[in-house]
Amino acid sequence: MIDYDRYDRVRAVSWRGDALELLDQRVLPFEQRYLSCRDVDAVAEAIRDLVVRGAPAIGIAAAWGVVLAARQIQSASGAEAAAALQPAMEALHRARPTAVNLAWALARMRSLLERSGTDWRMRLEEEAAAIQDEDLVANRAMGSLGASLIEPGSGVLTHCNTGSLATAGFGTALGVIRAGVAEGRVGEVFAGETRPWLQGARLTVWELLQDGIPAKLIADSAAAHLMDQGKVRWVVVGADRITANGDVANKIGTYALAIAARHHGLKFMVVAPSSTVDMNTPTGADIEIEQRDPAELLAYGGQRTVADGVQAWNPVFDVTPAALVDALVTERGVLHKPDTEGMRAMFGCTAA
Amino acid sequence: MIDYDRYDRVRAVSWRGDALELLDQRVLPFEQRYLSCRDVDAVAEAIRDLVVRGAPAIGIAAAWGVVLAARQIQSASGAEAAAALQPAMEALHRARPTAVNLAWALARMRSLLERSGTDWRMRLEEEAAAIQDEDLVANRAMGSLGASLIEPGSGVLTHCNTGSLATAGFGTALGVIRAGVAEGRVGEVFAGETRPWLQGARLTVWELLQDGIPAKLIADSAAAHLMDQGKVRWVVVGADRITANGDVANKIGTYALAIAARHHGLKFMVVAPSSTVDMNTPTGADIEIEQRDPAELLAYGGQRTVADGVQAWNPVFDVTPAALVDALVTERGVLHKPDTEGMRAMFGCTAA
Repeated sequence: MIDYDRYDRVRAVSWRGDALELLDQRVLPFEQRYLSCRDVDAVAEAIRDLVVRGAPAIGIAAAWGVVLAARQIQSASGAEAAAALQPAMEALHRARPTAVNLAWALARMRSLLERSGTDWRMRLEEEAAAIQDEDLVANRAMGSLGASLIEPGSGVLTHCNTGSLATAGFGTALGVIRAGVAEGRVGEVFAGETRPWLQGARLTVWELLQDGIPAKLIADSAAAHLMDQGKVRWVVVGADRITANGDVANKIGTYALAIAARHHGLKFMVVAPSSTVDMNTPTGADIEIEQRDPAELLAYGGQRTVADGVQAWNPVFDVTPAALVDALVTERGVLHKPDTEGMRAMFGCTAA
Repeated sequence: MIDYDRYDRVRAVSWRGDALELLDQRVLPFEQRYLSCRDVDAVAEAIRDLVVRGAPAIGIAAAWGVVLAARQIQSASGAEAAAALQPAMEALHRARPTAVNLAWALARMRSLLERSGTDWRMRLEEEAAAIQDEDLVANRAMGSLGASLIEPGSGVLTHCNTGSLATAGFGTALGVIRAGVAEGRVGEVFAGETRPWLQGARLTVWELLQDGIPAKLIADSAAAHLMDQGKVRWVVVGADRITANGDVANKIGTYALAIAARHHGLKFMVVAPSSTVDMNTPTGADIEIEQRDPAELLAYGGQRTVADGVQAWNPVFDVTPAALVDALVTERGVLHKPDTEGMRAMFGCTAA
């Protein structure tokens, strides 16, 4: 039995009854500053500016954003409220394009409204809480499922941040690593620093330190050499969107890790709640890949690192084809070697 | 005919008659500060501290370091001087372990001394100048040889800095790119930022800007996605050591690029002077890979980026097996698909 109090000490998103409190991930690990969002615009801005990030966490934040937006409207019925809240939902949707959890959470809130009568306001708040609570439950389930695949004492490599900071708690890929450490399956943990935003360097290794799990930071470009040195057996990552054929959009650099893992005969695991599965998008080629400001590559901490006049190409996600994925872990179970048929069998009813 | 005045405007290493002048690459691109080394200790320190870097450039700097050391000794013959200079040569040798050019340049200076009589002092200085001049000539030859392999209009990706800053001038891989741009063979140029020291971000794109060659900076981890998007046809890199079987030690991240290039059916070119070839080392597994201070991953520009207590793994080179190399370009010619036999045929006489 995993001691969740020990292995999960951070919360990124907390509902305070009148405001959404977000741990500002832009200033971690040096400052633990909380930002209080009292209206939907503040939530959308926080999602866009990466105060809150991680596919599940932005879905949860968006759900609470709808609750905050609902305070500004007077509607007699859920259907009326759904119409009145449409502009707020669209503003939230536009904040980040790649992760499907955001769209999924908004669709769930809209669907709830359409099914609600005069009690829509209370039910809307319950639905946001359910989205958050279910995510934590899903992560704990995925943690055990994923860890069970890992041979005792294995070195693992992860990318970006997929922990409590990116979810309602415990994490997706990082939840598997937490469970694996608790169960002695995971030996050494390596984390890629995750340029340009340094989620690995700033967030993942800090978050693991809070739990007393030592992790070694590596340059993203050192991963193939790490594999060649026999130091890892599994690469374990999260996802921002998984398409109907099993392709996985995730943080830039994930695809390179999958290629290198396959080259070395190592295993590649994707861990994500089923809300990340998008059966309406046929393949990875159909996903809009978010391009962020090239300035993210040209400066660090406000300090310019690159000469003036230099251009940059800054896609922040990439697509790992299903053929490079050995195991897809969701709260519904483990799908080995995902493909269209396997995805349909497990997620056929996910389509919104 | 390539206009070398236009396409090669920077010099990293200049002999001033009484001192070795080095462009301090630690403070580029924001400051063009020159450091004047008046004794061999200053040269060794400059090599160790990355004031000067790049395999050919540190070989050249070491040769001039021997000239400076010679000013402190009184020896009647070359053989006597060789013995007297041994400690200085060892100090230079220890400064960086991975690049073989450093050892090669020192061996060449020692051999010259052993063949010299009373005129050893003058001949030593001539030898250092020859090492430097021959490097520039080799780079221009390799530039044309390598560029001829590239299909007109191709996108290319490079890694680290292999330009005038890393050599006597023009560069190795960057020389191929310069020649390719001049001849219309190279279309778009992409440069990986090259964590942790950011040679790509700080040096390569700056150096290319001086020549009016626009290059796009990418996160190292974005290279596989770049390849998947069809934006590059060749990956062109330098080398710090090439072993008897054709394995290539180069900046960390090179190996991952070679794996990804092969995965996408793209071509991988290694460009290095024959002084980088080490026929005395059988395979890449026999190379000492330099581990640098983990602090390079934990801070940037003196600004801490990672929580206290975090550990890092910071190998700064990796080994790309010969099987992933499509073309090895030296001033002696192009070796396609290098292997032990091909290496022996082309470099059999390189062994010191």
